[in-house]
Amino acid sequence: MSRYLEDVSPGDRFPAGSVEVSEAECIAFAQAYDPQPMHLDAEAAARTRFKGIIASGWHTAALVMRRVALARPLGDTQVLGMGVENLRWHLPVRPGDTLHVDMEVVSVAPSDSNPRYGIVKFLITTRNQRGETVMTHSPICWVPRRP
Amino acid sequence: MSRYLEDVSPGDRFPAGSVEVSEAECIAFAQAYDPQPMHLDAEAAARTRFKGIIASGWHTAALVMRRVALARPLGDTQVLGMGVENLRWHLPVRPGDTLHVDMEVVSVAPSDSNPRYGIVKFLITTRNQRGETVMTHSPICWVPRRP
Repeated sequence: MSRYLEDVSPGDRFPAGSVEVSEAECIAFAQAYDPQPMHLDAEAAARTRFKGIIASGWHTAALVMRRVALARPLGDTQVLGMGVENLRWHLPVRPGDTLHVDMEVVSVAPSDSNPRYGIVKFLITTRNQRGETVMTHSPICWVPRRP
Repeated sequence: MSRYLEDVSPGDRFPAGSVEVSEAECIAFAQAYDPQPMHLDAEAAARTRFKGIIASGWHTAALVMRRVALARPLGDTQVLGMGVENLRWHLPVRPGDTLHVDMEVVSVAPSDSNPRYGIVKFLITTRNQRGETVMTHSPICWVPRRP
């Protein structure tokens, strides 16, 4: 099933499921991509203002991307990420947290430069198991128009 | 060595080094965090507009974060990412590319809410081995003031 630019409208919502954050994965991600003590090492992290390991914000973003890729809001259609607006890490994400990911369509517009494509802006809200918003961001995507 | 809000000014530049992108790492990242054919599978990727595997944009962002964390522009000072503005993936990143990362300070301001902190906005420009800009983004960071 393929969905196209014409099939999405502002206000459309797509739940994108949940993911549990493990300490081992937080540390592995940090070792590979964000080697700072608060993400890497329980003892060093305990001495920070966070009093324990917190996930790299980029790890949280990557976990959310996985949920979005699996949710496939446009079905088989190849969607290309052009960029992201207003990424905010509102609260720390900690090992043991469960993140819930919700997508909403903010805007839909045909491309000025290419009549076969359009631009869809989403708002993705990621909440923890207490319903607190931990991250918000607005991906801007290049989406094919209906052939 | 610790550097504080008072030690950075708009226009300050920090080179953050280079990283080579490997196909194995592109695929491993995609399997974990962005399971889409163009990032995952050489054969499926060959049938896309990109004619081969391209790195997940979030993988590129994570590789850049690693360079920034290792460059430590504020030395031992703990810097907290509050968010990111204007993230743009301008061109595909492919296995075998070498990415060069440069940071520049865009703005420095004391916090309105906490007299011990301030907010620094950076512009990070990531270029490939041909000097083409592949990604730009502006992290917004929470930085301690000089005690």
